[in-house]
Amino acid sequence: MLIHELSVSQCERLLERNQLARLACALSDQPYIVPISFTFAPQENCLYGFASVGQKIEWMRSNPKVCITVDEIIDRFHWTTVVVIGRYEEIAPQDVTARRRAQHLLQRRPQWWLPAAAESADEPQGGAVFFRIHIGDVTGRRAGSPDDPSATPHV
Amino acid sequence: MLIHELSVSQCERLLERNQLARLACALSDQPYIVPISFTFAPQENCLYGFASVGQKIEWMRSNPKVCITVDEIIDRFHWTTVVVIGRYEEIAPQDVTARRRAQHLLQRRPQWWLPAAAESADEPQGGAVFFRIHIGDVTGRRAGSPDDPSATPHV
Repeated sequence: MLIHELSVSQCERLLERNQLARLACALSDQPYIVPISFTFAPQENCLYGFASVGQKIEWMRSNPKVCITVDEIIDRFHWTTVVVIGRYEEIAPQDVTARRRAQHLLQRRPQWWLPAAAESADEPQGGAVFFRIHIGDVTGRRAGSPDDPSATPHV
Repeated sequence: MLIHELSVSQCERLLERNQLARLACALSDQPYIVPISFTFAPQENCLYGFASVGQKIEWMRSNPKVCITVDEIIDRFHWTTVVVIGRYEEIAPQDVTARRRAQHLLQRRPQWWLPAAAESADEPQGGAVFFRIHIGDVTGRRAGSPDDPSATPHV
């Protein structure tokens, strides 16, 4: 199996057509991973998302360095994965313009994975925040043969 | 949608029947996520894995604190996710007993996702290492109705 590096524009196209990501944050060098829904805003070179107030938000308020991965997996021989190194910025409730922009972008598509919006039966949590992830670096890899059309269905 | 916390034994059963995880490591509070193949060893309360020598291995040698997530996603209303907070321990090449144990466990099942074993066409990397992740804490959540059998196909 060969793995090929993606160009930045190939990475961006993958970010544009997906909305489920894994986000890692860290505090005192302890990493933590959570799934998030996001929308890519290419003009601003950032990802918009929202989440319930909890450990990950507290950690990102303390340390805004994050890593996000988005995958498209067909099978073990044909997959694409993009890694974003970025910086968390919370959108303040009083920043009405930015909140409207976030809501507009996030509502453009069905929100596939929204644990942030779900109420836990065992541990109810209140409140959700909008945020941006400013993209500092983006890289991607694709596995599969370049001669096999099934290896590159979207790229 | 309701989200339910899993018991430790429910988390362990999910770890036993899966072999693809996302692992986050961190250096200087910058997190980084990579996919890994793993095998759960319940008797030792650890996960075995292997990876090519690269950034993630260098980072975990410097800072052994890691986070691992394993998901089972049916659809947006029915999913289960387990989060492990753990500690990385590399298995030295000269530790023959531990390496054999790791190889034995990892070879018991088809290795679904092995970017570690693939050679990059653009950036060849040599060498792979076996490692253990000692489980410090494991938590899990399941979304779906308890009355809906499709919500809990395996748990």
